[in-house]
Amino acid sequence: MEAATVKELYAGKGKYLHQRIQINGWVRTLRSSKTFGFIELNDGTFFSNLQVVFDENLANYKEVSKLITGSAIKVAGQLTESPGAKQPFELKAECIEIEGLSAPDYPLQKKRHTFEYLRTIAHLRSRTNTFSAVFRIRSVAAYAIHKFFQENGFVHVHTPIITGSDAEGAGEMFRLTTLDFDKPPRDEKGAVDFTKDFFGKETNLTVSGQLEAETYCMAFNKVYTFGPTFRAENSNTPRHAAEFWMIEPEIAFAGLRENMNLAEDMLKFIVSYVLENTPAEMQFLNSFVDKSLLERLTNIVKSDFGHLTYSQAVEILKKSGEQFEYPVAWGIDLQTEHERYITEKHFGKPVFVTDYPKEIKAFYMRLNDDGRTVAAMDLLVPGVGELVGGSQREERLDYLSKRMDELGLNKEDYWWYLDLRKYGGVRHAGFGLGFERLIMYLTGMTNIRDVISFPRTPKNAEF
Amino acid sequence: MEAATVKELYAGKGKYLHQRIQINGWVRTLRSSKTFGFIELNDGTFFSNLQVVFDENLANYKEVSKLITGSAIKVAGQLTESPGAKQPFELKAECIEIEGLSAPDYPLQKKRHTFEYLRTIAHLRSRTNTFSAVFRIRSVAAYAIHKFFQENGFVHVHTPIITGSDAEGAGEMFRLTTLDFDKPPRDEKGAVDFTKDFFGKETNLTVSGQLEAETYCMAFNKVYTFGPTFRAENSNTPRHAAEFWMIEPEIAFAGLRENMNLAEDMLKFIVSYVLENTPAEMQFLNSFVDKSLLERLTNIVKSDFGHLTYSQAVEILKKSGEQFEYPVAWGIDLQTEHERYITEKHFGKPVFVTDYPKEIKAFYMRLNDDGRTVAAMDLLVPGVGELVGGSQREERLDYLSKRMDELGLNKEDYWWYLDLRKYGGVRHAGFGLGFERLIMYLTGMTNIRDVISFPRTPKNAEF
Repeated sequence: MEAATVKELYAGKGKYLHQRIQINGWVRTLRSSKTFGFIELNDGTFFSNLQVVFDENLANYKEVSKLITGSAIKVAGQLTESPGAKQPFELKAECIEIEGLSAPDYPLQKKRHTFEYLRTIAHLRSRTNTFSAVFRIRSVAAYAIHKFFQENGFVHVHTPIITGSDAEGAGEMFRLTTLDFDKPPRDEKGAVDFTKDFFGKETNLTVSGQLEAETYCMAFNKVYTFGPTFRAENSNTPRHAAEFWMIEPEIAFAGLRENMNLAEDMLKFIVSYVLENTPAEMQFLNSFVDKSLLERLTNIVKSDFGHLTYSQAVEILKKSGEQFEYPVAWGIDLQTEHERYITEKHFGKPVFVTDYPKEIKAFYMRLNDDGRTVAAMDLLVPGVGELVGGSQREERLDYLSKRMDELGLNKEDYWWYLDLRKYGGVRHAGFGLGFERLIMYLTGMTNIRDVISFPRTPKNAEF
Repeated sequence: MEAATVKELYAGKGKYLHQRIQINGWVRTLRSSKTFGFIELNDGTFFSNLQVVFDENLANYKEVSKLITGSAIKVAGQLTESPGAKQPFELKAECIEIEGLSAPDYPLQKKRHTFEYLRTIAHLRSRTNTFSAVFRIRSVAAYAIHKFFQENGFVHVHTPIITGSDAEGAGEMFRLTTLDFDKPPRDEKGAVDFTKDFFGKETNLTVSGQLEAETYCMAFNKVYTFGPTFRAENSNTPRHAAEFWMIEPEIAFAGLRENMNLAEDMLKFIVSYVLENTPAEMQFLNSFVDKSLLERLTNIVKSDFGHLTYSQAVEILKKSGEQFEYPVAWGIDLQTEHERYITEKHFGKPVFVTDYPKEIKAFYMRLNDDGRTVAAMDLLVPGVGELVGGSQREERLDYLSKRMDELGLNKEDYWWYLDLRKYGGVRHAGFGLGFERLIMYLTGMTNIRDVISFPRTPKNAEF
């Protein structure tokens, strides 16, 4: 008798019925009388539990009937049709071996816990329905991303986490060091001597792999990164974390139009793949976390994304009659309230906003012919606001140099980035997708701390 | 006329012959006379080049015939059978648009460059045949890993990069901080006050996601991580980098046997997948980098991996008659010379060595009944030595506590790890696979700096 999994039972469509099988898992709930009992067993392979029925014929009936929630058991028995409507089958236990007992103070008792409390036991929370759903969806979504890019001819590049450069030109970064903090080595002038540090200079954690990805784009045509990025911003909001994962594709011989098409295709693929591969999880989240979730996601897959320029967006916002917290004028950075008005109220679907004022965008974005806007694009989606931010990159060496001078960037630090424009540079474009924002969007969870296994935020690096 | 890719031409099996197509790419070499010329064009989508034939009928013949290596062009024309034996087809150019010129000092001229030199232009080296092969294989291998685990029911967990704990109990780590290094805040006693730091305490870059992955294993049964890890070791060797990626699966209700089977299945899957999906790259590397590569990899897929205990390995080494640099005695940590003797000379295939002395292994490994060895496993492979290291984990709370006390570990720091043994703990096991070691193995490259896009090593964090 082989050990089966609950996933196999559900996928097997009756194949396991009336067979003797063994299932290993954890007790989610247990009810028992003097002569029989029921266990909701979860084996981790599938969202749904398996109902285990046992009775006093078990040699260890007494022990089993008193098992504490969270205990691990191995159940051998026959899979039979379930008389109850709640599940298609149940396991009639012939033997239950106790693998690992739980303790009476097990924190996940049957009552409902707040997400805030569950964050304090992040090492256990994935045993609950909600987090089991969220983190399985996270895994499936990550795979969907790789699948999409790999099947479309992209090369996955692992750009460095430790960096001497600052890709955004402005991000707040974590410094890393192996120097003695208490008594760092100092040079003749008394300044901390970073030439003595591990890398012989100051280094930081990356805020983006884009610049390095561009170097690979000029070799492989289509590339993507998928790795952790960092912001040392003291932002204690439900949407910010100090450590998060980002996807950054980069395509050659392409401009903003191809870039937008790529973002749209990618997002539709991911959403479809997740809907198809985690139906039980999506149903659960739609019932208990966000009742508009399935409708919103289905809508994404079916709609053609809208397109408008930043200038058009500003006009729409001005004419909207809405009272915004941040007043609208050409030149402002759009706030979440503005973005959500555009995508939710005005369009009712995802929209790309393009061609932003150059002053509010990064140095590497391509200057438009009007001289005051750049070929940037943000994808705004209902319920979230900005999900994707990207641009066509400035491939003209003279324009790029000029812009870097204007912004006071040290071009020597970017010699290799400028080289890309000297040696067969081509039109190219790319974007960044914050993976956790995507997972929030896919699950309906509203706090980024609840879609990261062990979140890192200001004053918090537990576990 | 749609733009096609060289990959499509090769995959199309004649479908594009005699069609008019457009290809965008970079000039690898160019030969020209007064009336006609040849360009080896690489478009990044495929390892092989496309031969472009052009003649004086081009409006810009003069410019094209003088193009510098590395220039980017768009070629429109008809795909025809090639009279030469080197390629199945060639593109007869009707129009060549110059997208981006290269400069006369382009460093990748036709002559062969050393790997050492190419490291200094890591932003350009993936435009060479060798690095084009290496980094495409790296991408395909990464995908193979996700594919293997996802299709076998594993949940991908993104464990934190920033950590307050030290998973190995002994790794040299990078500290990260946002404090002012020059004048850090100090407490009453004059010590640096890390409560003022970003996370309110000392934090480091992770050396392993295993301990956090174990928490998810107890919820999802089978999980894996695939992320960057860090070592602040001052090791300037061809096998060590300060930043590298690691794959760490963890399986519940499983011991060393299941763990070894998993490692064997995984490795065979990855090797087969890469052989199947990058044949041109593998052929190239087999011809120019490591002439035993294909034989070695094919051998892996076909052989049944061997198994022996550490004690047996020590006996074999003692009886070998070899003069080792490090003398062999029970209790020593096996060195690469020992490992390679075992796997290459004694077995001639991959072998698992198990049951190491507890003193040379980590605190979390399960104590065997003999009281002096632990249920550890290392996979040794010909040509490399250790490729995978893993163990069954100590699931017994009392044994684990005792071992942590013996080693002087602060159990309060590990409260959540110990919790896993209190609340339904089960037998479980896992291993770590260094991704770059794997890529070296798959490509025959002998320096880890040549399989990482932008390697980080002591005194080096360029780009």
